[in-house]
Amino acid sequence: MKTYLYPDKKDWKELLMRPSFDSSFLQKKVKSILNEVKLNGDEAVKKFTQQFDGVELENFIVDEKEIKEASALLSNELRQAIQQAAINIKSFHQKQITEVEVIETMPGVKCWRKSVAIEKVGLYIPGGTAPLFSTILMLGIPAQLAGCKEIILCSPPNKNGKMHPAILFAAQLVGVTKVYKIGGVQAIAAMAFGTESISQVNKIFGPGNQYVTCAKQLIQQEGIAIDMPAGPSEVCVLADDSADASFVAADLLSQAEHGIDSQVLLVSCSESLVQKVEEELNKQLELLSRNIIAKGALKNSKGIVLKNLNDAIELVNEYAPEHLIISCNDDELIAEKIMNAGSIFLGNYSPESVGDYASGTNHTLPTNGFAKAYSGISVDSFVKKITYQKLTQQGLQGISKAVELMAEAEGLDAHKNAVSIRIKN
Amino acid sequence: MKTYLYPDKKDWKELLMRPSFDSSFLQKKVKSILNEVKLNGDEAVKKFTQQFDGVELENFIVDEKEIKEASALLSNELRQAIQQAAINIKSFHQKQITEVEVIETMPGVKCWRKSVAIEKVGLYIPGGTAPLFSTILMLGIPAQLAGCKEIILCSPPNKNGKMHPAILFAAQLVGVTKVYKIGGVQAIAAMAFGTESISQVNKIFGPGNQYVTCAKQLIQQEGIAIDMPAGPSEVCVLADDSADASFVAADLLSQAEHGIDSQVLLVSCSESLVQKVEEELNKQLELLSRNIIAKGALKNSKGIVLKNLNDAIELVNEYAPEHLIISCNDDELIAEKIMNAGSIFLGNYSPESVGDYASGTNHTLPTNGFAKAYSGISVDSFVKKITYQKLTQQGLQGISKAVELMAEAEGLDAHKNAVSIRIKN
Repeated sequence: MKTYLYPDKKDWKELLMRPSFDSSFLQKKVKSILNEVKLNGDEAVKKFTQQFDGVELENFIVDEKEIKEASALLSNELRQAIQQAAINIKSFHQKQITEVEVIETMPGVKCWRKSVAIEKVGLYIPGGTAPLFSTILMLGIPAQLAGCKEIILCSPPNKNGKMHPAILFAAQLVGVTKVYKIGGVQAIAAMAFGTESISQVNKIFGPGNQYVTCAKQLIQQEGIAIDMPAGPSEVCVLADDSADASFVAADLLSQAEHGIDSQVLLVSCSESLVQKVEEELNKQLELLSRNIIAKGALKNSKGIVLKNLNDAIELVNEYAPEHLIISCNDDELIAEKIMNAGSIFLGNYSPESVGDYASGTNHTLPTNGFAKAYSGISVDSFVKKITYQKLTQQGLQGISKAVELMAEAEGLDAHKNAVSIRIKN
Repeated sequence: MKTYLYPDKKDWKELLMRPSFDSSFLQKKVKSILNEVKLNGDEAVKKFTQQFDGVELENFIVDEKEIKEASALLSNELRQAIQQAAINIKSFHQKQITEVEVIETMPGVKCWRKSVAIEKVGLYIPGGTAPLFSTILMLGIPAQLAGCKEIILCSPPNKNGKMHPAILFAAQLVGVTKVYKIGGVQAIAAMAFGTESISQVNKIFGPGNQYVTCAKQLIQQEGIAIDMPAGPSEVCVLADDSADASFVAADLLSQAEHGIDSQVLLVSCSESLVQKVEEELNKQLELLSRNIIAKGALKNSKGIVLKNLNDAIELVNEYAPEHLIISCNDDELIAEKIMNAGSIFLGNYSPESVGDYASGTNHTLPTNGFAKAYSGISVDSFVKKITYQKLTQQGLQGISKAVELMAEAEGLDAHKNAVSIRIKN
């Protein structure tokens, strides 16, 4: 971690710049896979599964038996942990379901808004070194609460053509309707366009590597919705002398172990705290199984010391971190002044990892500064909010003049006439 | 309007296909304008304003004096109509502001979610034949209710370098902070990247022609959020014999006058109604000032007769119209079964134009079938929902085992350690 002492405001922009990744060189390759799946369906998916995952599959769908057996392959303890997390996530997300309220804006003019589930959604869970079953909870539970009819899940098979039992256990727990052993760009293509065995979905969710991210961007341009733009995961810790340096270091490392492109930022007004955290980082780093990855990420990481708290808050808002941990005495007061962040963790006993797994909040959050304009995943992400209105004859009478005048001023006669013809009648 | 009698389900997909518009050939031109503004700022904006709008401007910003004078240039009646519409839109959207509710998912684990305004938003209002001041109300009022700090508006100047007074009146009414006389791709670029005189925004809203739409798509890929993907406006009327054919025809025409690419669909189980509407269309069409446009749109429009109501509902859901008018006896029951639509108008006295202008609902809605996954504009569009959590030491104790087990199973040691180090302490 490199330390920056009292950087000048005019240098903040550069200091806070994320490493930019240009995916345009991937586009050609990704486009050709998308097109081939669009054209040849299952046959193309089979071909790419053999090519990229190294397995030949007769069927992509995971059968009932395999799903049922998965539960027995997990330890009791892990099963209970996943169930506990699911309960918390459900109770937090349940409150996001909104009631219909009819508003009479003028006498006889009733308007209301209702959340209606997106019918078919697709969840993508990457393969790789670890089975990210926690992400299934984070996407599947709000989908289930929203009432989505079809919730399909794609994840790459391992070399033996199998899926990790924790993935399957989590999938059945949250009511995923079908699980397919398909990974990468071919999975995004299959869900976006549909094939003989996979039905087309309306919105695609979930993390992935650069190829998957690029595929999601491209299918978005064809009208399939996606959860949000993606970038490497990141944490910012804002800490004062009330923070425990060993806790702060542990939080920074828990982000750094994600990947060498992870972003880790420590912001403080205390030089001594930053120094203590630095020492703790070196101590804790050696004990980690993924220390090579964490070391890589720490190379790009920054400890920034600022003159005063106001500057620190301004810098955090400018950075707009995915995760923000506020380990300060005045944590709640400071949180009130944070305008841009995905999820905020307050105090000394709220490490990011509780939110990553089990406290109840969602861990799919805007990275890369997108927190300035985007929210994390919630039940909202799985519904459309449809508006409704019903006017009585008198209600129309009362509003008619305003509509007629405005339509006329916008030069739209037929808009005016749709009201006039009903009033004359 | 062409009539289709009892089409086979297998032909629905083709029947409901929107005319596709490939903007890829525009991309090169649009990209070069975006890049030039990014590079040369105001100077480039000036150049393109001269080139495309035919005016040379010293300053883009509309001064206070011009804004204040605008009000006097409108008739009292129009001013009152706009004010009435603004009141209704405000009372409908006000209810979309959500309260913070703290949820204790486990003892000592408190989680909550708060809506925080997107700091800087940009509204784009196209020029052209009519001044679309109603769209300023539809975008500006929810922005104001959300609490956005900067709400800037760009709209092209006319040949005299002026803006229509209704635009300026609406802008000051909804609290727009700055108005700029800039149009087209150069306006989108200026708001997306910022220039010497225009500050960069976090999200861009508003309709536009194919160039503007293409520019919005391109800047979205660079991380600036946009309201939603766009396509030509459309209405679908679902009507039974209780409908008045003259009302239905007027509604179809009010959509058809938007542009020759507008989509108009009539769905019914009554052959005789469709025939009566056809006759009414011909009668009313001749009286419209924009009848050449409306005639063009009607050429691509369809009257579809189906066997029964269930089929009709299924077809409407498949089409996912931007606006749906249900002129049927059982309008409310039918509305319950509609899963995909932007905004729904019930009964014989709820023409689309009341929602377009003044009833209170928003008129910026998902077109092109996007209603399957997207919502119209609301206060939600102008906020991010940030999640928060604060655990007590005991709260962390209670949840620690679940987090440790899950992190371990995902192979993420440092995530586990961020909890363990606090528990051991």
